[in-house]
Amino acid sequence: MLAPRELDRLIVVLVSTRNPLNLGAAARAMSNFGFSHLRVVHPYEVAFREARSAVGAADVLAGAMQFDSLAESVEDCSLVVGTTAVSRRAVQHVLHPLEQGGPLIAQRLRSEKVALLFGSEKTGLTNEELSHCHWLMRVPTREKHSSMNLGQAVAVSLYELVRNAAMARDSKVQPLAPSGTVHRITRVLISVLSASGYLKSQASPSVQAKIRRQVLRLNLSSPDAELWLGMLRQIAWKVGITEDQRDKKHRL
Amino acid sequence: MLAPRELDRLIVVLVSTRNPLNLGAAARAMSNFGFSHLRVVHPYEVAFREARSAVGAADVLAGAMQFDSLAESVEDCSLVVGTTAVSRRAVQHVLHPLEQGGPLIAQRLRSEKVALLFGSEKTGLTNEELSHCHWLMRVPTREKHSSMNLGQAVAVSLYELVRNAAMARDSKVQPLAPSGTVHRITRVLISVLSASGYLKSQASPSVQAKIRRQVLRLNLSSPDAELWLGMLRQIAWKVGITEDQRDKKHRL
Repeated sequence: MLAPRELDRLIVVLVSTRNPLNLGAAARAMSNFGFSHLRVVHPYEVAFREARSAVGAADVLAGAMQFDSLAESVEDCSLVVGTTAVSRRAVQHVLHPLEQGGPLIAQRLRSEKVALLFGSEKTGLTNEELSHCHWLMRVPTREKHSSMNLGQAVAVSLYELVRNAAMARDSKVQPLAPSGTVHRITRVLISVLSASGYLKSQASPSVQAKIRRQVLRLNLSSPDAELWLGMLRQIAWKVGITEDQRDKKHRL
Repeated sequence: MLAPRELDRLIVVLVSTRNPLNLGAAARAMSNFGFSHLRVVHPYEVAFREARSAVGAADVLAGAMQFDSLAESVEDCSLVVGTTAVSRRAVQHVLHPLEQGGPLIAQRLRSEKVALLFGSEKTGLTNEELSHCHWLMRVPTREKHSSMNLGQAVAVSLYELVRNAAMARDSKVQPLAPSGTVHRITRVLISVLSASGYLKSQASPSVQAKIRRQVLRLNLSSPDAELWLGMLRQIAWKVGITEDQRDKKHRL
C-alpha cells in the first residue's frame, strides 16, 4: 500500500471529459484506492456540474480543481505521465505497459508530485496534450479492442499504483524538476532557436510542442534543470534576446 | 502468460445485476482483455435486455448465457471464486487479495474452467451465493470506501489475470546515442557557452568534464542526440563560432 503522504502526491488529471458518469466513476475509483486530488482541464461544463451533484465519491469531486489549460494543471508536478490505448503513439514517446509504468510512478511518489493524465472519451490525449508528458503508459488491452471505458481505465491504473507500492520502496531515484522549470527552459530554448534561424521567428504550436517534448524527455533533475536554464539564459542574452521579448513572444 | 485457450476457460458470472450500464461495462472490460464467456444469473430482466442492445462489446453480450440459478451457471467449472469488497466475510472462507488470487486463477486456467463471480451492485454476493465458492478474492480498496463500481471491479480483476502475460513484453526504450555524438554535442555546447560568457574562453579540463557529465546524464537516444546537435550547431553559427575554431579550441 502507498503511504498517505504518497497517495497525496498523485494528481489525476482528466482532460476534456464529456460524460458526467465517467467523471463520477473516475472519482469513485480514486476514493476506493485512497487518492484525493482530481483536476479537470476544460471539461464539458454540463458534465462537470452534473458529476459534482451525483452521489458517491462526493469528497473527491467536491475538491476537484478546474483548469483552462493542461500546462497550468500540471505546473507543480515534476513527472507527467499520459495514458493511451494505442501502441503506435509510442513513436514519439517512451511507452511503458502499465505494470512497468506503475512501479516507476510509485517510486516518484515517495518525494514528488506526479500527474497522471487521461484524455477525452472519444479521442484520448491529443498530440499537443501528449507533448506535456515525460512518458506514456498503456493498459495491456488486446489490439482488436484496445479502447477502454474511461472510468475503468482510471480504476485499473490506480489499482496498479497501489499494488506495486511495496516493490518500489527499495530503489533510489533523483527527484525530477517541476514542470514549471521545464517549461521555462523550453521557452528560452525556442527563443534562442528562433533568433538563430533554426526555427522560424514565430514557431507554430506543433513545432513548440515538438521542442517541449524534446526537453521533457531529458528527464532533468531539479538541480540539472536549473543549470541548463542558466546556460540557456546566458546564450539568449548573447544572441540578443531580452527577458521581456522572451516572455512576450513565446509564452507557451 | 494467458494463451487463447486459457482466456477461453474463464467464465465471468454476474449475479443479480441491476444496472444495464454495469452489464455493458463488464462486457466491455472482458472484450478489452480478451475474455468472451459471460454468464448472468437472474439479472434484472429489463437491464439485461437494455444492455444487449447497447453499443460496444456486442460480441460478449450477444453470447452471454442466462441462468436461473447460480449452481447451474457454474456446473462445468472446477474452480469457483467469489469477489468481495468486504474483508470480514473472510471468516467463513479463505480470502486472497487480488494480486495473490489472480496468479492462482491463472494457474488453474491452464487446464480447468474457472468461474469468477460478481454479486449485485447493492449487496454483493449473498451468503448463499458465497457458499458456492472455493475461496474469495478482494480488490485492495481502502476500508473507509471499499465498495467498488461493478464495471470497475470486473476491469481491475481481469487486468490482474492478464497482467502476467503483459509482463513478458518489454517496454519500448530507444537505444542510446553513440559516445561520439554525445562528445560532439559537448564540444559545440562548450564553444557556445564560452562565446556567451557563461564559461571562460578557455574552459578548464574540470569544467569541461562537468559539462560533459551534464550532457551524458541526459541519456540521449540516437535520433534525439542528432536533433540537439543540429540545434546547437545553428546556435554556434549565430554566436559567431566557425567549425574550425570549435575543433581547435575545444577538442575534448
